[in-house]
Amino acid sequence: MVKEVEQQFLRYVKKMMSYNEAIQVMYWDMRTGAPKKGLEQRSEVIGVLSEEVFKMSTSEEMAAYIAKLSPASVQAQLSDVARHTLAECKKEYERNKKIPVDEYKEYVILQAKAESVWEEAKAKADFSLFRPYLEKLVAFNKKFIDYWGYEGNPYNTLLDVYEPGVTVEVLDNVFAKLRERIVPLVQAVVASRHQPDTSCLFHSFPKEKQREFSLRLLSELGYDFSAGRLDETVHPFAIGLNPGDVRITTRYDERDFRTALFGTIHECGHALYEQNIAEELTGTPLCTGTSMGIHESQSLFYENFIGRHYSYWKRNYPLLQQYAPEQFANVSLDDFYRAINEVKPSLIRIEADELTYPLHVMVRYEIEKGLFNGTIDVKDLPDIWNAKYEEYLGIRPEHDGVGVLQDVHWSGGSFGYFPSYALGYMYAAQLHEAMLKDIPNVAELLETGELLPIREWLTEKVHRFGKTKKPLDILQEATGEGLNVDYLIHYLEEKYKAIYRL
Amino acid sequence: MVKEVEQQFLRYVKKMMSYNEAIQVMYWDMRTGAPKKGLEQRSEVIGVLSEEVFKMSTSEEMAAYIAKLSPASVQAQLSDVARHTLAECKKEYERNKKIPVDEYKEYVILQAKAESVWEEAKAKADFSLFRPYLEKLVAFNKKFIDYWGYEGNPYNTLLDVYEPGVTVEVLDNVFAKLRERIVPLVQAVVASRHQPDTSCLFHSFPKEKQREFSLRLLSELGYDFSAGRLDETVHPFAIGLNPGDVRITTRYDERDFRTALFGTIHECGHALYEQNIAEELTGTPLCTGTSMGIHESQSLFYENFIGRHYSYWKRNYPLLQQYAPEQFANVSLDDFYRAINEVKPSLIRIEADELTYPLHVMVRYEIEKGLFNGTIDVKDLPDIWNAKYEEYLGIRPEHDGVGVLQDVHWSGGSFGYFPSYALGYMYAAQLHEAMLKDIPNVAELLETGELLPIREWLTEKVHRFGKTKKPLDILQEATGEGLNVDYLIHYLEEKYKAIYRL
Repeated sequence: MVKEVEQQFLRYVKKMMSYNEAIQVMYWDMRTGAPKKGLEQRSEVIGVLSEEVFKMSTSEEMAAYIAKLSPASVQAQLSDVARHTLAECKKEYERNKKIPVDEYKEYVILQAKAESVWEEAKAKADFSLFRPYLEKLVAFNKKFIDYWGYEGNPYNTLLDVYEPGVTVEVLDNVFAKLRERIVPLVQAVVASRHQPDTSCLFHSFPKEKQREFSLRLLSELGYDFSAGRLDETVHPFAIGLNPGDVRITTRYDERDFRTALFGTIHECGHALYEQNIAEELTGTPLCTGTSMGIHESQSLFYENFIGRHYSYWKRNYPLLQQYAPEQFANVSLDDFYRAINEVKPSLIRIEADELTYPLHVMVRYEIEKGLFNGTIDVKDLPDIWNAKYEEYLGIRPEHDGVGVLQDVHWSGGSFGYFPSYALGYMYAAQLHEAMLKDIPNVAELLETGELLPIREWLTEKVHRFGKTKKPLDILQEATGEGLNVDYLIHYLEEKYKAIYRL
Repeated sequence: MVKEVEQQFLRYVKKMMSYNEAIQVMYWDMRTGAPKKGLEQRSEVIGVLSEEVFKMSTSEEMAAYIAKLSPASVQAQLSDVARHTLAECKKEYERNKKIPVDEYKEYVILQAKAESVWEEAKAKADFSLFRPYLEKLVAFNKKFIDYWGYEGNPYNTLLDVYEPGVTVEVLDNVFAKLRERIVPLVQAVVASRHQPDTSCLFHSFPKEKQREFSLRLLSELGYDFSAGRLDETVHPFAIGLNPGDVRITTRYDERDFRTALFGTIHECGHALYEQNIAEELTGTPLCTGTSMGIHESQSLFYENFIGRHYSYWKRNYPLLQQYAPEQFANVSLDDFYRAINEVKPSLIRIEADELTYPLHVMVRYEIEKGLFNGTIDVKDLPDIWNAKYEEYLGIRPEHDGVGVLQDVHWSGGSFGYFPSYALGYMYAAQLHEAMLKDIPNVAELLETGELLPIREWLTEKVHRFGKTKKPLDILQEATGEGLNVDYLIHYLEEKYKAIYRL
């Protein structure tokens, strides 16, 4: 009897997931060259399917499954997959059911409107245009927090959407340490007399050659091209349609090959996660990364701990020289390595180097926390933003277009998302240390190009679980301890003191 | 009240059509490079959505709409779109409802199995492998004819699926004339001492250059690239996702540019049809070609009546010479024109020239008719097939792999489909004659590249109606008469007597 309901429940969920996969295929298609005249109708199709998924996730049928399968005595008889799936569906059901339908509809309309207003405001560098929308978005989210409830701190409820288990208490602690150690390090780096010569980076490097080089690196990193493909888009991304179909995209800048190179390696890290989720999770909501932060830990692991590692370039720099002989013929490996690891405080998060990157995130974290704790008003955001950039990065935006208006997230009501970027970085550093205990010769592997053991370790510890484990549990089991920002600080200090001879 | 039900009905249908569009996007994606490891799961997703569409088309809700909206007094109050949509849904509902569910499921399984057996049988040139499956497929279709009923001739019911209104009576008449006039013409052509020199066709022509040339021709033909795109596949096709997104694919043979050239122009004809359907039909089952035959009339119109026309090459041959200077430098326009219009009886339908093509279709028509009238047994097919090829085309297959096993259609249970290919050709010739009355200077337009009036005429007479008019009504209204094969015969005789100096 339980088994029968379990099977029905899993079939029901599989149908929802099928709709989701169809939606994802259409999203990928829209971004990779779908004809523009068909987009309006395609959006309607996506709308129809999305509405259906939403209805199914909050239907009476779903409620009945949750009611039947939730009792402890019943859960004990469920398969692991069914039990975790039930937990996910229940979470989703409760989250969606607690918001009155009319309010939610109003919010969806606001989101759409706010995003287009934000675009205009950013282009005109005029915060006053966006301000009333942002105020409403914050107000809505405050109401949602009331509906959903919170523990400790209202902002925790929003954090939980992206990084279950990570709270203000945790983040305050790690960001305080980061601030204390990284801000002075950045200052020292900037003041150093040993600045890298980056002139080798900005030659003309034909797109086709960059693509060929990227394809070679991707294969060596373990990206499975029979379960993926590489395309070109304005905004690079990775998308897991199912574990056998995980696609990545990149952007080529013919005057700066780093865009495609590090972008591709970054997305490859995301893709390896999705390609290596256990097959049995296909067709359930567990068949994806467990959180934004853990996902980002994989992309940053590949981008920084592999792609910006000296040993990796000891192997691959000669190959790069073959693809762009004129550009690199007279540049030594050491000079190249220092160039691609240049630190330069800048205003734009997505263009930041790895040392200053966490500070960009910290600014956003502190602002979001203040917004939802009532200590910061939307109207004061530009001033607060600019003051924090000056304090942490030593630079001040000339206008809000390169300041508080730079990111899309808030216009879509995504509050609580930003910390994941920094958490991913901390997770990556901590995983890297743990990996070194099991595979002490990681640097050697990078140098010989035998990268399989690295990917296998990550699959064993992270990938295969999909969403069956919470982010902090994955971290604990993989590294033997909870979140510890010291690993990231240590990594950054070691690396950048050496590069800048501090 | 009627208006309210009408709106609900149209919303219901729109949902089905949204699912269909999602399925079509996934089909396109599968054929243009989806990673192979994801295909099994993707097929399941398509299965889930297809089942949903099928359920909706035969649901009690659909039955209720049909019951409420069908009375003449109610229909009189419906919009044209709603009335035609109702007719389509009713036809589909009745067709699907009349087959017992279990039998239908058995048939779907048989189809899948038969197709893979057919592939093997074709590769091994062994009809005996395929024979039992073909026998079952024919038996199932005979039962379906019983369920659905028939008028005049059992085969009419199958013809009606692909070409509503076209019967055995109509086809017997046109094929008799074709046989009488084309078979001797082919014999005379083969015996002619004035054979074209085709050696200029088979040089190495790089894919990239072929693609560039194709793109130029497509733009000039009126294909709207902001509502479409050109990709590469093993089997070329056109697919209309919605009127703003109609994609075509082609295949490049670097040793024979005709494959991509005529293939692209052919698919362009299909695509122009779908790009120019009236916008108000979007989201209904009317938003597609009215029949296989009319669809094929558009592709063949472009492929043959434009793409193989002397005047078209008077304009475009100099351009082609620029794209492949070595190949064509010493070939005159006249020689080129004769080469691309070479007639050569061959065994494979899809490789046939325009003169022998209808004879390939005639063989299949005569066999299908015999199968469903009980005058031909499946076991005798190879002998009958070979005898007919010998009689009509003067050649005999060495084995069944290039004979009765060559086409995929029967393995999928598609009986009644083949005649559409010949009908499309007849329609195209008849439309061409009618067009000449309205636009006497068509040849001049081809020569100057001003092709817009041609596309506009076809849109006015054919494209815009989508499925709101039946094929023979479109023909009647566009040309002032019913199906008349004389136009095709006249066209072929004139053209090939000139080329072969008969």
